[in-house]
Amino acid sequence: MTPFPELADKADLERGQTLAPRFDATGLIAAIAIDADRGEVLMLAWMNADALALTIETGQAHYYSRSRQALWKKGETSGQVQTVVEIRVDCDQDAVLLKVRPQGDGGACHVGFRSCFYRVVEDGRLVERPIP
Amino acid sequence: MTPFPELADKADLERGQTLAPRFDATGLIAAIAIDADRGEVLMLAWMNADALALTIETGQAHYYSRSRQALWKKGETSGQVQTVVEIRVDCDQDAVLLKVRPQGDGGACHVGFRSCFYRVVEDGRLVERPIP
Repeated sequence: MTPFPELADKADLERGQTLAPRFDATGLIAAIAIDADRGEVLMLAWMNADALALTIETGQAHYYSRSRQALWKKGETSGQVQTVVEIRVDCDQDAVLLKVRPQGDGGACHVGFRSCFYRVVEDGRLVERPIP
Repeated sequence: MTPFPELADKADLERGQTLAPRFDATGLIAAIAIDADRGEVLMLAWMNADALALTIETGQAHYYSRSRQALWKKGETSGQVQTVVEIRVDCDQDAVLLKVRPQGDGGACHVGFRSCFYRVVEDGRLVERPIP
């Protein structure tokens, strides 16, 4: 897979036009997926360079599973394929933001909610309150 | 600082009421901050157990700086304090989602944009297009 370049200069990294994602020591970068139409945060997952390159090339979200230690096309088994509408990076290029349209049943979470963030911390306890 | 419990059982982790954040091998968990009123993703940062506990206790976002290797109260020098409106965790409790109201100039990014995700990947290049 095509490797991404590395940028040492802070100004280039922050204001330049070169996509130079900064993967961590384990070769991963955090990726947030939000619903392109509703705006809600669906999930946070991880990408290695291959997953990011494949996401850009195919227009479908690919991640890297830390538990399975494997590249993973979202929805391959669940049908919850994510069509990518837009890809953003943050100021220091160590995080990715995907705007996606979830296919299949429209969800992103294996537990059955649209978003993985279905629980709120209240008085130190978790309460299930899916994002409307 | 009060340590958080660890949960081994998957069902407890996913559907239980116990806040048991799963910090990674370096003791950190990813935290997404979104604007409580606009919904836009402002930033992705990291928390150690102290940062998460302080965020819950004080109602103001605390993070852990990987580059400075130090606990960090957001806005301490910039004035961009984040008042926390809601805290969510994801299904396997290895990510945190904060709904915040940015104080000071209303921004979250040191580069000067409201959100750190001010650049879009287009044809393999980055284009500055701040979230409206």
